[in-house]
Amino acid sequence: MAKSVKKKEEPVILVTNDDGITAPGIQALVEAVKGLGKVVVVAPDKPQSGMGHAITIGQLLRLQKVNFPGDVEAYSCSGTPVDCVKLAVDKILHRKPDLCVSGVNHGANHSINVIYSGTMSAALEAAIESIPSVGFSLLDYSIEADFSAATKYARLIVQQLLEGRSLDKHLCLNVNIPASPEKLIKGIKICRQAYAKYEEEFDERKDPTGKKYYWLTGEFQNFDKGRDTDVWALKNNYVSVVPVQFDLTNYELKEKLEKNWKL
Amino acid sequence: MAKSVKKKEEPVILVTNDDGITAPGIQALVEAVKGLGKVVVVAPDKPQSGMGHAITIGQLLRLQKVNFPGDVEAYSCSGTPVDCVKLAVDKILHRKPDLCVSGVNHGANHSINVIYSGTMSAALEAAIESIPSVGFSLLDYSIEADFSAATKYARLIVQQLLEGRSLDKHLCLNVNIPASPEKLIKGIKICRQAYAKYEEEFDERKDPTGKKYYWLTGEFQNFDKGRDTDVWALKNNYVSVVPVQFDLTNYELKEKLEKNWKL
Repeated sequence: MAKSVKKKEEPVILVTNDDGITAPGIQALVEAVKGLGKVVVVAPDKPQSGMGHAITIGQLLRLQKVNFPGDVEAYSCSGTPVDCVKLAVDKILHRKPDLCVSGVNHGANHSINVIYSGTMSAALEAAIESIPSVGFSLLDYSIEADFSAATKYARLIVQQLLEGRSLDKHLCLNVNIPASPEKLIKGIKICRQAYAKYEEEFDERKDPTGKKYYWLTGEFQNFDKGRDTDVWALKNNYVSVVPVQFDLTNYELKEKLEKNWKL
Repeated sequence: MAKSVKKKEEPVILVTNDDGITAPGIQALVEAVKGLGKVVVVAPDKPQSGMGHAITIGQLLRLQKVNFPGDVEAYSCSGTPVDCVKLAVDKILHRKPDLCVSGVNHGANHSINVIYSGTMSAALEAAIESIPSVGFSLLDYSIEADFSAATKYARLIVQQLLEGRSLDKHLCLNVNIPASPEKLIKGIKICRQAYAKYEEEFDERKDPTGKKYYWLTGEFQNFDKGRDTDVWALKNNYVSVVPVQFDLTNYELKEKLEKNWKL
């Protein structure tokens, strides 16, 4: 009985990101999901790009209620994107939200970037905690990026999920949107993660005292010829959707080791 | 011709961790692999537990040559465990090592912890870069932990890998060692990652000015009844070995979405 009453309640949508609560991308995402449920924002108080699945151990965390455009309930958090999800559930919502959306990230999170991305780690954290989730990223790093196509597709996908189609409690989607005018985007493609990565080279410099220091830099390279990958889809002006899992077991290799290891 | 000459060269073994270069665990791991190849240590200059797959963006990185017990070539790095691997390849070794080992971590990295662990993220980074790798973790958080069983099994596993059995360039193993006396350990089990995780609760406190702050805390819970998991193996006094992959695509869900989505 209690359950059926709950079903009719407005869904709760938790919004977070890794670019920080003041980033235009998170405002675009809130815009996208507005009206589809009760929206609560809990996002880092500063940029947290490249934080991966970091959590804060050995340091305290702060939460601060903040103003957010459109009168949306919002909190900034001193921790990582993953901390934001954990704190939101335990200390703000006091329940699991019905959906967690993360982004819209300023920059691509396709291929191997899913592993480094704070945006996607927040989404994956939600999925681990049995909260269906989606991370959205636009292939444009600039602060003035045009989020109109991202907003449109984010709304479409969230609507679809809230209607209950294919909604698994551990569902986690990595959605990337091409940096193209909306009318040029051909639609959505369900993809696998490409084996494509940055080939790093560190930029070596000397400080005024003569001591060396390094900047991470690199060039993106696609080693994957597949036409079913996120990189291919984006290159061909599709929105890419990769379902993501947190069971990292390599079952193929597991079988091989069971047969071949002499230990 | 050049290739066959290279084969006869001593293998290069890169050693890193997330507890920092002064942790007893990394000394135990260096002890374990000593004599099996040319050993080079590149590890964080401070503890980096829970850093996941974080990389340093927007901040410079430093490398410092340091003394390490047993006259081993060693460098401390101001960045994350993943930064250590990237910097080691580009700026210290100037080549890919033949193997990367990470740990021995002070504390468990079984089940979902593989995702939060800096130790395992360093190993996974190596695998992404086509360097076979193993992360080792001992189920004892204390600084005075007894690493003798860990050292024995780490050496066994590394020897096996260097002999070329099942050596894949993207191989990444997550090895956990029970906190039991060596004679009670029953051997090695190849496992899958358990669905087991910390159920978080934040400890809410007030600072001297009355403002709230939070500490992450939680209780470990195993939701997985399987007898083929790492958690099961460790509970039954086996060393657990989980082969880990960096393709996070959920292929089962991908198929389901391709059939069911109306977008």
